Amino acid sequence: MQRINLPKGFLASGISCGIRKESDKKDFGLIFSEVPANCAGVFTKNKVKAAPVLITMERIKNGIAQVIVANSGNANACTGDVGIRDALLISKEVSSLLNIPEEYILLASTGVIGKPLPTERIIPKIPFAIKKLSWDGGMDFQESIMTTDKKPKFIFKSFLIEDKEICITGIAKGSGMIHPDLATMLSFILTDISISSTLLDKALKEAVQESFNMISVDRDTSTNDTVIVLANGISKNPKILEEDENYERFKNTLKEVCIHLAKEIVKDGEGATKFIEVKVINAYTKKTARTLARSVVSSNLVKCAIYGEDANWGRILCALGYANSDFDPSKVDIYIDEVLVAKDGSYVSFCEDEVSKILSGDNIRILIDLKAGKFCATAWGCDLTEEYVKINAKYRT
Amino acid sequence: MQRINLPKGFLASGISCGIRKESDKKDFGLIFSEVPANCAGVFTKNKVKAAPVLITMERIKNGIAQVIVANSGNANACTGDVGIRDALLISKEVSSLLNIPEEYILLASTGVIGKPLPTERIIPKIPFAIKKLSWDGGMDFQESIMTTDKKPKFIFKSFLIEDKEICITGIAKGSGMIHPDLATMLSFILTDISISSTLLDKALKEAVQESFNMISVDRDTSTNDTVIVLANGISKNPKILEEDENYERFKNTLKEVCIHLAKEIVKDGEGATKFIEVKVINAYTKKTARTLARSVVSSNLVKCAIYGEDANWGRILCALGYANSDFDPSKVDIYIDEVLVAKDGSYVSFCEDEVSKILSGDNIRILIDLKAGKFCATAWGCDLTEEYVKINAKYRT
Repeated sequence: MQRINLPKGFLASGISCGIRKESDKKDFGLIFSEVPANCAGVFTKNKVKAAPVLITMERIKNGIAQVIVANSGNANACTGDVGIRDALLISKEVSSLLNIPEEYILLASTGVIGKPLPTERIIPKIPFAIKKLSWDGGMDFQESIMTTDKKPKFIFKSFLIEDKEICITGIAKGSGMIHPDLATMLSFILTDISISSTLLDKALKEAVQESFNMISVDRDTSTNDTVIVLANGISKNPKILEEDENYERFKNTLKEVCIHLAKEIVKDGEGATKFIEVKVINAYTKKTARTLARSVVSSNLVKCAIYGEDANWGRILCALGYANSDFDPSKVDIYIDEVLVAKDGSYVSFCEDEVSKILSGDNIRILIDLKAGKFCATAWGCDLTEEYVKINAKYRT
Repeated sequence: MQRINLPKGFLASGISCGIRKESDKKDFGLIFSEVPANCAGVFTKNKVKAAPVLITMERIKNGIAQVIVANSGNANACTGDVGIRDALLISKEVSSLLNIPEEYILLASTGVIGKPLPTERIIPKIPFAIKKLSWDGGMDFQESIMTTDKKPKFIFKSFLIEDKEICITGIAKGSGMIHPDLATMLSFILTDISISSTLLDKALKEAVQESFNMISVDRDTSTNDTVIVLANGISKNPKILEEDENYERFKNTLKEVCIHLAKEIVKDGEGATKFIEVKVINAYTKKTARTLARSVVSSNLVKCAIYGEDANWGRILCALGYANSDFDPSKVDIYIDEVLVAKDGSYVSFCEDEVSKILSGDNIRILIDLKAGKFCATAWGCDLTEEYVKINAKYRT
């Protein structure tokens, strides 16, 4: 059994409340910091936001939190006023039992949309979830947020700031609807670093931009996507208050954590058999590079071609073309792994056998050289398979 | 065998040139107007445009054309200077044999991207295609442009303007990549009406906006999409020079023709088993209604749910939410056929059996009431199936 290391001062738990009646899978989890932690979050841009997202977005503005309450099996989305009431009921119960302010409690849910939360099954189990809180409860928490995920997604990193060990743990779930609905993307990042909430927020936004915002499983954006970071300061490093070298070191590690989790999410995309990395280089602007990389990795037809192990570079060029971004098609070179498959926007002879061999692998790298400027971006995705359709044709019922 | 009626003064043909070596399917077609016709066209917005699209866009600016040359099996896209040279070679040959100006010849291609046209197989067959031109060659032409299409798509309509019979024929092909790449969307509309090229252009743009621009098979936009209308004036009606009642009558019939062809294209979408109509009503603006209707009909997850006959209205609301358009989620009502499945953005109890029965049908109608303004729009699409993935995993090779 794998173990998830947690930074100093964090406890976690995960239990089964039977949120989806038929199942005894763990579906309700807690993360608890022994002291109030600075916090930051990034949430779905979908105009339809789930009740827990609305509440958490409001609370996170304070910059301080102490508990994360998460559940799977029910997204508490499209549930109107009842949804808000239910989420607050749970939050109140946790607050009362742990004796901490309600504002310090952040909420996240994932699962089916449009059904009220079965609070009558959840509330009575909260004392048990609290009782189970422990320094090695990370994996129980992880299991409690998994839905169609085939494997746990987590990472632990540590580094030093002036002799103090700083730890960061990231725990995430995927997996469908990543341009993320149902199998919402949830990521929780815990660290014992001491940092101002302003800089924590800044570091998170930058890390998310180059990680979670660069992955796509199916272009559908969830009502529940949530990334939260808690920094409880227990490592006792000199508090990070400006963008100095220590800040950079933290930010880069945070970015590594986010990129790792983001890649894990697409690798576990619903029905996925292959991991796809699309790198766009030499663009005039960062924005162009990002937009084009995402357009290619999101194209159904590119994803089907990769699944079929077909070096269909025309679809790649086509996906660049409809991205509504500025570039010169007649200058584009496309590589699959190391092999040049299109030059100056046009065909070039290449060894089909060599490319077929590359495409028979599990990790496919596409490099697109715009030969225009100096900016680059990388996006990650997965192939589109019959299995994806099967999974999503029958999710709700 | 079905027959395609052509308006007065139009001839058509379709032959096999063996553009895809292994096949003797018809793959090269001509439409010829006995007199120069006024013309208008609408083309792919993809930044990567096929050679025939670039040439035709330039020529159509003159407002006059006499011949349409079309082929399937090869899109002549991403073929660089060679692609332009090849297209011009064909155009020159047709021009010379028919003794009409090159500028009067419009070109359209569909098929695989990134391979040069086999002009050495096409050019020698052009005299045969010309010899076969006839008033009943419509179906041969139709067959010559089909790729993964399972059935021909055409329509004939007629109406009177001051005792003169006006005829309109529309011929189209689908079927994958409709938010249309490979199985490009091509539509050719022929009419014997007498109308200025300015008004012809205006009528076409309006008709396309409410027909072809409202369909989606897979969100990938082709390099080759083309809609062309030719009006040769042979019906001898008083020429339409202003937006009068006769113009309106023509425009409405043209719109009916375009909507019919657009629906036929999605009904024949690659791997599709169900036709989906999404109507958004009571939006603040026409643009909002259009954007939201298209977002729902384009969602992979909505399309999978319809395939799975699952009344997953949460995915519909979710797809509205990420459309980046202005509406109040808490006011949205959603109907599947006549059944209210969500009210005020939240769940409502409905008879699952009744909805299951509706969803077991082939034609699924979704109505979304925003309860905000007075604008509406309708979009059409199809379900996403395992078969779609199969077709597109193995297209090129």
